[in-house]
Amino acid sequence: MQFHHHGYVSTDPRIQPAAGVGIDRPDELPAEVDVLIVGTGPAGMITAAQLSQFPGITTRIVERRGGRLAIGQADGIQARSVETFQAFGFAERIIAEAYRITEMAFWKPDPSDPSRIVRHARADDDPTGISEFPHLIVNQARVLDYFAEVMANSPTRMKPDYGYEFRGLEVTGDGDYPVTVTLGQPAGDSEGGERVVRAKYVVGADGARSGVRQAIGCTMAGDQAFHAWGVMDVLAVTDFPDIRTKCAIQSEVGSILHIPREGGYLFRMYVDLGEVAADNKGAIRNTTIEEIIAKANDILHPYTLDVKNVAWHSVYEVAHRLTDRFDDVLPEDLGTRTPRVFITGDACHTHSAKAGQGMNVSMQDGFNLGWKLAHVLEGRSPESLLSTYSAERHVVAQNLIDFDKEWSSLMARKPEELKDPAELETFYTSTAEFPAGFMTQYSPSMLIAEATHGALATGYPIGKRFKSAPVVRVSDTNPVELGHHHRADGRWRVYAFADSAAPGEASAVAEWAEWLRTSPESPLIVHTPKDADIDSVFDVKVVYQQDHTGLDIGRVPETFLPRVGPFELIDYEKVYSAIPARNIFELRGIDRGGAVVVVRPDQYVANVLPLTATDELAAFFRPIFTA
Amino acid sequence: MQFHHHGYVSTDPRIQPAAGVGIDRPDELPAEVDVLIVGTGPAGMITAAQLSQFPGITTRIVERRGGRLAIGQADGIQARSVETFQAFGFAERIIAEAYRITEMAFWKPDPSDPSRIVRHARADDDPTGISEFPHLIVNQARVLDYFAEVMANSPTRMKPDYGYEFRGLEVTGDGDYPVTVTLGQPAGDSEGGERVVRAKYVVGADGARSGVRQAIGCTMAGDQAFHAWGVMDVLAVTDFPDIRTKCAIQSEVGSILHIPREGGYLFRMYVDLGEVAADNKGAIRNTTIEEIIAKANDILHPYTLDVKNVAWHSVYEVAHRLTDRFDDVLPEDLGTRTPRVFITGDACHTHSAKAGQGMNVSMQDGFNLGWKLAHVLEGRSPESLLSTYSAERHVVAQNLIDFDKEWSSLMARKPEELKDPAELETFYTSTAEFPAGFMTQYSPSMLIAEATHGALATGYPIGKRFKSAPVVRVSDTNPVELGHHHRADGRWRVYAFADSAAPGEASAVAEWAEWLRTSPESPLIVHTPKDADIDSVFDVKVVYQQDHTGLDIGRVPETFLPRVGPFELIDYEKVYSAIPARNIFELRGIDRGGAVVVVRPDQYVANVLPLTATDELAAFFRPIFTA
Ligand SMILES: Cc1cc2nc3c(=O)[nH]c(=O)nc-3n(C[C@H](O)[C@H](O)[C@H](O)COP(=O)(O)OP(=O)(O)OC[C@H]3O[C@@H](n4cnc5c(N)ncnc54)[C@H](O)[C@@H]3O)c2cc1C
Ligand SMILES: Cc1cc2nc3c(=O)[nH]c(=O)nc-3n(C[C@H](O)[C@H](O)[C@H](O)COP(=O)(O)OP(=O)(O)OC[C@H]3O[C@@H](n4cnc5c(N)ncnc54)[C@H](O)[C@@H]3O)c2cc1C
Repeated sequence: MQFHHHGYVSTDPRIQPAAGVGIDRPDELPAEVDVLIVGTGPAGMITAAQLSQFPGITTRIVERRGGRLAIGQADGIQARSVETFQAFGFAERIIAEAYRITEMAFWKPDPSDPSRIVRHARADDDPTGISEFPHLIVNQARVLDYFAEVMANSPTRMKPDYGYEFRGLEVTGDGDYPVTVTLGQPAGDSEGGERVVRAKYVVGADGARSGVRQAIGCTMAGDQAFHAWGVMDVLAVTDFPDIRTKCAIQSEVGSILHIPREGGYLFRMYVDLGEVAADNKGAIRNTTIEEIIAKANDILHPYTLDVKNVAWHSVYEVAHRLTDRFDDVLPEDLGTRTPRVFITGDACHTHSAKAGQGMNVSMQDGFNLGWKLAHVLEGRSPESLLSTYSAERHVVAQNLIDFDKEWSSLMARKPEELKDPAELETFYTSTAEFPAGFMTQYSPSMLIAEATHGALATGYPIGKRFKSAPVVRVSDTNPVELGHHHRADGRWRVYAFADSAAPGEASAVAEWAEWLRTSPESPLIVHTPKDADIDSVFDVKVVYQQDHTGLDIGRVPETFLPRVGPFELIDYEKVYSAIPARNIFELRGIDRGGAVVVVRPDQYVANVLPLTATDELAAFFRPIFTA
Repeated sequence: MQFHHHGYVSTDPRIQPAAGVGIDRPDELPAEVDVLIVGTGPAGMITAAQLSQFPGITTRIVERRGGRLAIGQADGIQARSVETFQAFGFAERIIAEAYRITEMAFWKPDPSDPSRIVRHARADDDPTGISEFPHLIVNQARVLDYFAEVMANSPTRMKPDYGYEFRGLEVTGDGDYPVTVTLGQPAGDSEGGERVVRAKYVVGADGARSGVRQAIGCTMAGDQAFHAWGVMDVLAVTDFPDIRTKCAIQSEVGSILHIPREGGYLFRMYVDLGEVAADNKGAIRNTTIEEIIAKANDILHPYTLDVKNVAWHSVYEVAHRLTDRFDDVLPEDLGTRTPRVFITGDACHTHSAKAGQGMNVSMQDGFNLGWKLAHVLEGRSPESLLSTYSAERHVVAQNLIDFDKEWSSLMARKPEELKDPAELETFYTSTAEFPAGFMTQYSPSMLIAEATHGALATGYPIGKRFKSAPVVRVSDTNPVELGHHHRADGRWRVYAFADSAAPGEASAVAEWAEWLRTSPESPLIVHTPKDADIDSVFDVKVVYQQDHTGLDIGRVPETFLPRVGPFELIDYEKVYSAIPARNIFELRGIDRGGAVVVVRPDQYVANVLPLTATDELAAFFRPIFTA
């Protein structure tokens, strides 16, 4: 965490000083806004939290409900989401409060008496160590609270506007605020009221029955039948021994997905209610909590469940479905206009409850879109940047749905159906990225380079998220995770992995640094606003191969020790060195001749280049930035 | 973190529901209080934070200043303090925000040109891995903020009462509130006002010039001369390469203790101004910031320091001093009456700035006193318990001062003065506990047993703090630190380390558990209030030798799976097992025949017993509890 460089911060450094539109932020929803977000679910809140970091941008997020979500909905948090929370600054707190999954147990009918279930197997949740972050379970409401706190502590002092319901929109294309949105006020003081807000951009994060989706004429396609689950969050006394372990329980009379919850007592059970035709959901919907509890007891036999308190329950019906596009640009208009309205999260795609993708994928949608809107609204990037949102996320959603189907069927296979025991291991290893949320790989585009130089950093596949690794921060000799310095601040990260020469000796990295600092072609010079800190667009870091004790920081190029803030202080948190015992060059397959790894504001690797390919680096950024 | 068991908690689980005196807590200082604390420094705030956890106890903490501390004072946080913060629930947040010391650098005059300094050595800050917690630097103000938050989130909703100055007190000995305290109101709306508050107990945490100390007639003895330092918290540009590393810098013209600070830019320098006689401090006090900066530049030569912004500066004069006793009971009255007034922190002892003890020892004073006051005020323990505070902490303070003197002189020795190279290593290892804050060992008393059975758990010396170790929580298969479950909630921890039999088999631990659950002699039965949860006084945990996968939780004695809260739910967080690769039985030298380790509410080991010594266990607790 870096602070104090604009002067001493006496109170919580997480609370940024109010700036720009945050200085006199009106409580009332204004008539004109830069971005209007509809819906305060995970997709909407992460987008709002991201946009709240930019003092020049007026973002409002409206929600039909009268206040915050209190209970229910999703609770599975993949490691990729925790990594994202780290970028927003609240990972350590949500980890402290959440349930952590380390193992999963599989229960099946006892072969000697199939009326009884018996533990069949246990499996490590993350056998391959796919992430340094844990797999968590915590209620969606708390995730939303943390994003709300990020917004409140941001320079724009953003707060959700509760009690506004999206009714419709029109993209007039006129003037500065070309989208006109009609909002109703279903409850509260202004009940029955209606408001019209004009926006530059609208984000529909209004869930599976999205009105915004409908307004821009998107269709939803996929499974015809829904899968129904009786879901309950309960406090209960039981003799089932794995009640605090995640379980897949199959019995002769049905199956349960069992999820322990935060706090040590509560748990959630998804009792499988089977497939339901889209036109015949009445009976299932009427399933009572008593029926769900009775069914759970039947499945758990010979164990019993004595429910003492029901915190929440629901019949959750969901199908694998996907919309045709994620914005308002019709296929025939692609290339002739850029989008004004976007949809994110459940509004675009819905997933089976099994793999726990819903909330997680929805947040990645918002993380993808947020910085792009900021780049365009701040005048840094052309509007064409916004077309990459639908292009990137639509493919990802399709892939995830396809993979989920394949994965679920593989997961359901019995060990005896596998050809050899190693197959199970291979399967786990090769698919471990999916449940952890790391399978996404974006295809080449204006934001993602071709993998021409991919061999220079095999552990950083272009289009995948930058996987952190341990290094030493040279200035203070702290062992740190290189990736954790990447905050959700809209900045690009450019990592220079040095060639083998020490600082002060002639080297490719020294030449590269000099070019970056002085060349009129340098993206640092061309794309950084004149009055801004030199690291305000590109955060350039160097990683040396030397052990930190053999490294003289006084001889490191000044590119990596930039002067920032009103006092022009030296930023010492850009110079790193490999840890001999866990060498990042080996862990990530980085060429000892050095390499440049470019990472987008949403943490995805955009390019890998040799230190000598300065023209190529300059050319990569040129179309992304207008100035 | 355990919650939800009294019903679903929708918002931040760190915020406890208001209860007892917190339900309608008056904003105004009441005329009668259980405990009146004077001073909101670290010593006072930790005591307040501890007492705030008890809904039946009215505690108020008054402070002369009109509001929170904003800047300056101490900043060194030993690992023991971070461990304590963990017990109060904010370790992970303060770690995220603080500077972390991993190495220290030593600079000396260059032998070839003694006018120039040169790096002479680097040393690991914690070479022996003394704690799983880091050594931090963060401003005292932030530590106080976190304690204030703990108080605000507690059932009693406690807040400091700013703007009240302690003027005097009288121990009348009459009635329920035998201490009469006079407070002035030096500033604010009621400027010039005076208030009289009657209290059951008074805690003087009012710093080095304590008025409470004076009121109870304590004397302060120790070094006659003060050591003076020019201290500055500054933002500066420099070419000194170790500016982000803690350094001891010795030059021909003086010396500096250099401390990088939180946030990545700020640092503190202690410029040594030498010894000052107590009666001749005028000149030193007038040292200006310009003089301090000039001196720093002289010392750093050939490096330079260009100070851009001074956040805080002071001339800090301090001597090793210690008061004769920590409460109002005169030596001649010991045993005839129990204390009503206590002093803590700098009011009792002051330390050289070098070892950074001040804030840390002060917090341990408060942690020692807080739970004892709570035990007595809740009617659990006899008033004689309160005499152990002065007895324990006075000796500790004396030992720390003695050790600090010895340590400082050893630290100052040149390598060439040591007999053999291994001596330095031995010295580091044997003294590593001191700077980390783990050297304290209480002597036998009503609270600390004789080490009769010490051989059963050599890694848990009686009288020292319980050193955590990794274990697996069986119910959810999470690897956790056993000690981190110990929160600052006033409860005792009783750890049963099992003999080698598995749960369900005949074993010493099973017999012990049955005795504890059912015997009329059991402390659990005798000392737990009838209407309270069975773990409300003693939190009893078991650690098995088996790997968790070979352990059937269904067969664990119900003593370790108690039913708690209004729904009588099972608490699953009391059953642990050793991790094969880092076995707690080996790490802490625990006898394979099992052992019982009793830990006090302030985390100090009180007793170690065989599983069979049930009479002895019962007898140990009898004098501590009145019922
Ligand atoms: C009732 C319910 C139960 C669920 N149960 C589970 C579960 O058991 N397990 C699981 O994994 N996932 C569950 N989900 C799905 C999971 O919550 C989503 O995958 C995830 O929240 C997606 O995030 P999102 O932000 O896209 O949408 P959502 O979280 O659905 O957020 C959409 C938001 O938009 C608001 N909104 C909708 N229409 C309008 C409008 N016209 N105007 C203004 N605001 C509007 C909604 O009130 C809501 O706050 C459930 C969802 C719902 C709605
Ligand atoms: C000005 C100053 C500078 C310091 N600088 C350093 C440093 O550079 N390095 C270092 O290691 N340590 C420093 N210390 C010491 C360090 O802060 C203490 O060791 C530590 O704070 C001890 O904690 P405490 O709670 O016992 O006392 P303190 O933190 O001193 O707290 C005592 C509190 O009591 C209040 N108080 C005093 N008298 C009254 C009264 N009559 N009525 C009501 N309230 C009263 C004070 O305002 C203060 O808030 C400094 C202390 C001071 C006061």
